[in-house]
Amino acid sequence: MVNPIFKQVTLIGFGLIGSSLARALREHKLCERIICGDTSESVCAKVLELGLADSATTDLAESVKGSDCVILAVPVGACAAVAQGIGPHLQAGCILSDVGSVKQSVIAALTPHTPAGVHLVPGHPIAGTEHSGPEAGFATLFEGRWCILTPPPGTDAGAIEKMKTLWEACGSKIEIMDAKRHDLVLAITSHLPHLLAYTIVGTAADLEEHTKDDVIKFSAGGFRDFTRIAASNPVMWRDVFLHNREAVLEIAQRFTEDLTGLQRSIRWGDGDALQTMFTRTRAIRRQIIDAKQAG
Amino acid sequence: MVNPIFKQVTLIGFGLIGSSLARALREHKLCERIICGDTSESVCAKVLELGLADSATTDLAESVKGSDCVILAVPVGACAAVAQGIGPHLQAGCILSDVGSVKQSVIAALTPHTPAGVHLVPGHPIAGTEHSGPEAGFATLFEGRWCILTPPPGTDAGAIEKMKTLWEACGSKIEIMDAKRHDLVLAITSHLPHLLAYTIVGTAADLEEHTKDDVIKFSAGGFRDFTRIAASNPVMWRDVFLHNREAVLEIAQRFTEDLTGLQRSIRWGDGDALQTMFTRTRAIRRQIIDAKQAG
Repeated sequence: MVNPIFKQVTLIGFGLIGSSLARALREHKLCERIICGDTSESVCAKVLELGLADSATTDLAESVKGSDCVILAVPVGACAAVAQGIGPHLQAGCILSDVGSVKQSVIAALTPHTPAGVHLVPGHPIAGTEHSGPEAGFATLFEGRWCILTPPPGTDAGAIEKMKTLWEACGSKIEIMDAKRHDLVLAITSHLPHLLAYTIVGTAADLEEHTKDDVIKFSAGGFRDFTRIAASNPVMWRDVFLHNREAVLEIAQRFTEDLTGLQRSIRWGDGDALQTMFTRTRAIRRQIIDAKQAG
Repeated sequence: MVNPIFKQVTLIGFGLIGSSLARALREHKLCERIICGDTSESVCAKVLELGLADSATTDLAESVKGSDCVILAVPVGACAAVAQGIGPHLQAGCILSDVGSVKQSVIAALTPHTPAGVHLVPGHPIAGTEHSGPEAGFATLFEGRWCILTPPPGTDAGAIEKMKTLWEACGSKIEIMDAKRHDLVLAITSHLPHLLAYTIVGTAADLEEHTKDDVIKFSAGGFRDFTRIAASNPVMWRDVFLHNREAVLEIAQRFTEDLTGLQRSIRWGDGDALQTMFTRTRAIRRQIIDAKQAG
């Protein structure tokens, strides 16, 4: 157990991640007060009803006053507007952080609105489910998961340390990484898999009605896992793709070339090429198991 | 509990599916004797060591003698050669079945070698894990899973009923379906998902070394699920793609067109198109949950 790290934490956005973080902060007593800032009145009401924050307001500028830590948990595309609204109201010494799945664009969006004396420490907890909203959150969401921090060069070491302590107290493993590198790695491990899942489920949705019924009925053979991924928050994922465009398109292009190669092997009956490829991919799984990322 | 359905069942091929079926037959007392036919001496030895069959032989012709049910659990591409070898030794009234993931090509492969008086009842239990071999099997693999039977028109109703009873006793839900329809539906629900998983893991394997290390380390965001699928048996999957070529290529082509459309939306910043698409795919997940195929 660590002592409270902050006096007052403002969480802006109380979806799956924001509400899970609020629960974890409470459970591990990481701050004295939690303020909810969310532009949705119904979300604010729900947050108070669930007891997730000490107070809640739709006035984001108001929500950050007096806080020594402000964490944005809104879709990546909303960060610039939120930062513009709250920037002038951040108190000196405050840490400004976020939980977005893309880091370069978030840094570009937040930096102009971060006053001198406020410490920008962007973060990305690699955790989530296909569910959305304040009721979907839970305190253990971050346990055993990576949280990547991408502080720009020159960021105050004490501020980085505090955010590290916060996420570790929530059960996360911490990695400090360059934002550009983060965006490339996540394009492969998360963004492209989501893009493929959305695509295949869309392809299935376009099938004639009675084939689609059978696809749903017999979805257990692999497709079902894709539908879970493809049920993730549409606005959040729209923003991820638009804001990590370069890396996603680069990786998607490589993927398409590789898929075309496999289609060609299938068309021309090149069994050796297929078997060689499928044997090679097994080795990657082995490495992930050895790295203790899967059992 | 049902009485023994068969006196003697021969299972040819003791990988994940064959060995799981042997365990389930034993556990539910569905036959009096189990014979293992497997061309690998080490597999036969392992089968006897694990007590999965009453006898085991690498002589497949010998293995089917006196059996009233013979089930092939070998890669789809091996079915024709196996059927040619055992066909002359199948006893009158025997049921010949299989567990292959493709049904039209298996029917085409088995029919010429199925003597008059032998009943061909092809089957496909939609179940599996990424593990292979006789030690990977377990008796509960088929519980709650679909098993699709695709008997050709005119197949003896009593023989179909017996296979239905066998799989139901193993815990499966049964569907009788036309083989062509099976191959199309499975191309979407299983074969394309596997092809995409193999491709993306291959794409990752081609990355420069230190990016690949990070991909393995931070694989939790979606990629890890794909590596599990891409660790499936290489020979089995090579054969699935080669033997369901038409349906897989047709569905892969549709998929590629849809992916290209999404890439274009990302490149040109068409957020509305992305959000509309991602909202639509959520509905499919909802239908699968309503169909009780996921929780």
